[in-house]
Amino acid sequence: MARTSIVIDTDPGQDDAVAILLALAERGHLDLLGITTVAGNVPVELTTANALRLVELAGRADLPVFRGASRPLLRKLKTAEFICGPDGLQGAGLPPPRGAPRDAHAVAFLLDTLRNAAGKPVTLCPLGPLTNIALALAQEPALAARIERIVLMGGARDLGNVTPAAEFNFFVDPHAAQIVLQSGVPIVMFGLNATHQAMATPERVGRIAAHGTAVARAVTGMLERPRPGGKAKFGVEGHPLHDPCVIAYLLWPELFTGRDCHVAVETAGEASIGRSLIDWWGSQRQPANAHVIDRIDDAEMFRRLAQSLAKLG
Amino acid sequence: MARTSIVIDTDPGQDDAVAILLALAERGHLDLLGITTVAGNVPVELTTANALRLVELAGRADLPVFRGASRPLLRKLKTAEFICGPDGLQGAGLPPPRGAPRDAHAVAFLLDTLRNAAGKPVTLCPLGPLTNIALALAQEPALAARIERIVLMGGARDLGNVTPAAEFNFFVDPHAAQIVLQSGVPIVMFGLNATHQAMATPERVGRIAAHGTAVARAVTGMLERPRPGGKAKFGVEGHPLHDPCVIAYLLWPELFTGRDCHVAVETAGEASIGRSLIDWWGSQRQPANAHVIDRIDDAEMFRRLAQSLAKLG
Amino acid sequence: MARTSIVIDTDPGQDDAVAILLALAERGHLDLLGITTVAGNVPVELTTANALRLVELAGRADLPVFRGASRPLLRKLKTAEFICGPDGLQGAGLPPPRGAPRDAHAVAFLLDTLRNAAGKPVTLCPLGPLTNIALALAQEPALAARIERIVLMGGARDLGNVTPAAEFNFFVDPHAAQIVLQSGVPIVMFGLNATHQAMATPERVGRIAAHGTAVARAVTGMLERPRPGGKAKFGVEGHPLHDPCVIAYLLWPELFTGRDCHVAVETAGEASIGRSLIDWWGSQRQPANAHVIDRIDDAEMFRRLAQSLAKLG
Amino acid sequence: MARTSIVIDTDPGQDDAVAILLALAERGHLDLLGITTVAGNVPVELTTANALRLVELAGRADLPVFRGASRPLLRKLKTAEFICGPDGLQGAGLPPPRGAPRDAHAVAFLLDTLRNAAGKPVTLCPLGPLTNIALALAQEPALAARIERIVLMGGARDLGNVTPAAEFNFFVDPHAAQIVLQSGVPIVMFGLNATHQAMATPERVGRIAAHGTAVARAVTGMLERPRPGGKAKFGVEGHPLHDPCVIAYLLWPELFTGRDCHVAVETAGEASIGRSLIDWWGSQRQPANAHVIDRIDDAEMFRRLAQSLAKLG
Repeated sequence: MARTSIVIDTDPGQDDAVAILLALAERGHLDLLGITTVAGNVPVELTTANALRLVELAGRADLPVFRGASRPLLRKLKTAEFICGPDGLQGAGLPPPRGAPRDAHAVAFLLDTLRNAAGKPVTLCPLGPLTNIALALAQEPALAARIERIVLMGGARDLGNVTPAAEFNFFVDPHAAQIVLQSGVPIVMFGLNATHQAMATPERVGRIAAHGTAVARAVTGMLERPRPGGKAKFGVEGHPLHDPCVIAYLLWPELFTGRDCHVAVETAGEASIGRSLIDWWGSQRQPANAHVIDRIDDAEMFRRLAQSLAKLG
Repeated sequence: MARTSIVIDTDPGQDDAVAILLALAERGHLDLLGITTVAGNVPVELTTANALRLVELAGRADLPVFRGASRPLLRKLKTAEFICGPDGLQGAGLPPPRGAPRDAHAVAFLLDTLRNAAGKPVTLCPLGPLTNIALALAQEPALAARIERIVLMGGARDLGNVTPAAEFNFFVDPHAAQIVLQSGVPIVMFGLNATHQAMATPERVGRIAAHGTAVARAVTGMLERPRPGGKAKFGVEGHPLHDPCVIAYLLWPELFTGRDCHVAVETAGEASIGRSLIDWWGSQRQPANAHVIDRIDDAEMFRRLAQSLAKLG
Repeated sequence: MARTSIVIDTDPGQDDAVAILLALAERGHLDLLGITTVAGNVPVELTTANALRLVELAGRADLPVFRGASRPLLRKLKTAEFICGPDGLQGAGLPPPRGAPRDAHAVAFLLDTLRNAAGKPVTLCPLGPLTNIALALAQEPALAARIERIVLMGGARDLGNVTPAAEFNFFVDPHAAQIVLQSGVPIVMFGLNATHQAMATPERVGRIAAHGTAVARAVTGMLERPRPGGKAKFGVEGHPLHDPCVIAYLLWPELFTGRDCHVAVETAGEASIGRSLIDWWGSQRQPANAHVIDRIDDAEMFRRLAQSLAKLG
Repeated sequence: MARTSIVIDTDPGQDDAVAILLALAERGHLDLLGITTVAGNVPVELTTANALRLVELAGRADLPVFRGASRPLLRKLKTAEFICGPDGLQGAGLPPPRGAPRDAHAVAFLLDTLRNAAGKPVTLCPLGPLTNIALALAQEPALAARIERIVLMGGARDLGNVTPAAEFNFFVDPHAAQIVLQSGVPIVMFGLNATHQAMATPERVGRIAAHGTAVARAVTGMLERPRPGGKAKFGVEGHPLHDPCVIAYLLWPELFTGRDCHVAVETAGEASIGRSLIDWWGSQRQPANAHVIDRIDDAEMFRRLAQSLAKLG
């Protein structure tokens, strides 16, 4: 099978970190062209540093990292240190980055990559607020045709997490999310209704810890922290691994099922802003613009995740 | 146990019909002071006629029916004939009413009833759009203290049914719903996340049919109709019996569990209008204004429902 | 000429006070059936007391006053003590009322009056937030046919005063304003673009003061107070007499010109909420629902106002 | 006096055309670094062609033109052929362009220009929807410091023109307008309340026609077309010359007066979307972010405009 060319757009964040490491581990299947960073879980200076720390951890300091948007299109940045810790990778125990991001802006890298991708479309993997992707698509809508698809983490079919209405990534930049959903690019969407099935329970984390590698230590350090209120909320101990689902889907699509739906994002009001309006039952009779994932074979996904991460030193 | 004084505010509608019949059947426990009607499933002329047809079917032509609001506070009326049929009680096979509604407006009846209820607070049971209740509470907010509680069908914690965001009753009059939720009256809320568990499957309907009474024939006639797309949507054949949950809760609260939450209703925008914003996970740190029902012992509820309806000739 | 039957719905407020006094002074032309009060400039307890103080000042203690809504339909009450003073009639020097409001609620009085008005339609004169009028029209939309017209103070074609978007009355209860504008009743609308022409300059107030009556003393006391920032805002010293324009229009329509327009009120968002969307240039091609006043012969209006007020002891 | 470095961002449009020609005519004072185009009055292919036609008309085929955004950030493009004609320059009688736009995207040109502008900040002159400017500022917010100021045509303090609420440029891309207003760049804003004073009456157009030049013929051809409903709307015959005010302000600031205000743009709802919320009376107590022009010495402006245009062959 040909390798899939991907760009990861990300705001690490512990679950972003695991997603990036999984992509690096599966280099045989995924050709990661670069990592673009965005403000989200923590400010963009930190998400950029974290992306560098992760590629260096994985022995891939060669991989280019591009710093992107420092704030959402219209709204004030809301961050999530209460989950991610002050540096965004609490528990990872990683040193500061030795390297630096490239000079080009993340949006410029995205536009260049797509312009040069005529022969082989690129898959975009946004794991944070969609600011960079939206800026690229708004500037050059015609480049949508060069994107194989966008597999993203964001939204919620049922309850949100930041507000009753909205999931964090869509809440932080709802306008960007709406631009991406209107772009015409085929989208696979992992909302909370899916990712809350991907619980990194202590037993599952323990399987990774057993590798004894530097990567395993970092991952374990991030995931063993107790999740405040986690058991009450999710029914089991542990953190939901939202973002790794995106990479897992590229590797093992057979573990996921979903439905083609029309999805829009609420950009008005305060109470509902950022809500993903997923027409799951087809009442709106609008053409589907996203494949919304609903069910995950999470046991198998975690088994394979542990196997993959073992490939990294 | 003392009988509970209730007023049913309703837009029958087949599931409203079953709820009304259940309340009439359990006269020993519920003191139904009157029925107020509202535009919703069908226009108010029809919901009023249907309320009369139902009390006459149950041999309770003495029960006063009051016609209420003919349209929502601000929005155009949206009806649901595609579910309820042109007269709202498709399948019931009931004759036109012999009686007529009282002269007083539903809102005047509500206000009078509450003003006179000092010694014994009243429980309101809204089964349709909340226009009448909102008009009464907006006119005389102090009467909120005379309401024991409001047990209502409306809203959705997860997906809506009219739109991806909104359930029918809240969608039809979101402003009224928000007035009621802000009123300070204790509220028990049955949204779609709860009522979709109350599926009137053919087997369950069959148990009612076996009574052989006039009431059983009417109920069976309404519920046997195939629900378009029902099995695909609900996983089983049959209609969800939204509104009877409200009366069942008054009779058998032990069959239901829920959580105290803050709930608001989106009154802005188009895509999200009517969404019930249920702070299920307490992220908004606002005081709870509703007990939101989450789980139903539906097997037992249907068993008891059938037993109760057997009491009506 | 036959006397015009009117009801004044009001939240006095100094300019409401002058409007009420003008209506009482022109008893030969205006048959004031009653005064209904509403929360607005100050809470409804105070606006009700003020209505009583004013009819007593004018020697019309017989005139029925009905207390109405204590808060807007959906929003929290916002008052205007910074303009009106703590009791709403700062400067009037009036004693507390001797009388009391009638038992019936303002909305009940409005509904009864309209039901009994078959032969002779009534003109409603709302000078405050439209909560009472909206509650009556929402409860019984068919009574719209019994209203000759609604001549109201509210809205703004150009700048608002509470916010850049919204005038006070529409801002306080935008949902009520929208209900009234959608009601089908013919409406004459005095927004800020008109009423800011009606400046009670010191010279004009002086002409009223010269009467030497108790009414003149009260009016002068209210209007002589310096308006904070008034000259900078209006170009001349003095208070704009918003509400008296409504009564003046009934008496002397030849002093006013306007245009038939479609008008809606924004009920969504925060920044624009309460904005009156006046289609002055007809770009929306919707049927006109209001006659929007644009120009006032203010010099003549104040001349006549002074003459009229002289009729009151 | 040092020449002011400017970039004109534009969607010509006849009044854009006059603005561009004025800037070219006053080359001694304005150093036009390039023209960026945007979708607005007509699609971006046409606005780009029109920019080229105009520089060629003025003998400045050397001036770089950069094609920009083909659609607003989130909303569907709304154009204005009913005013501008099918090609956007109806009446100009200009041949198709001989040249072509540069390869770089308008946003890339803006970003490069600002990055290289450390020593000498640039003044941006947006005459159409603010999509390009917003994309540049959202991508690299820090470059705001390299912008001397933004002098723009857009918004309305009083009535809008596309809707009762909104002026065309802000209506077409309200999200872009809000991004620009939030950017921290000093802004001078020409809304309809100002530009409707700049009426190109037949007498004023006649003074330009008298030059007998190719430029004069094109300008006269565009402006002598009758404006449908113009006299009824504006009180005089002729077209309002919105966009030339921006360039005139750079040349002759003494002809304009205004006020520092806080300005925001409504991005929610439908009825009010695109409204510029100008806190003219300071009720919101937020820091000013724009100098909002209020009065124009239009007689003198047109006198000088005619003199300037005479400098172009």
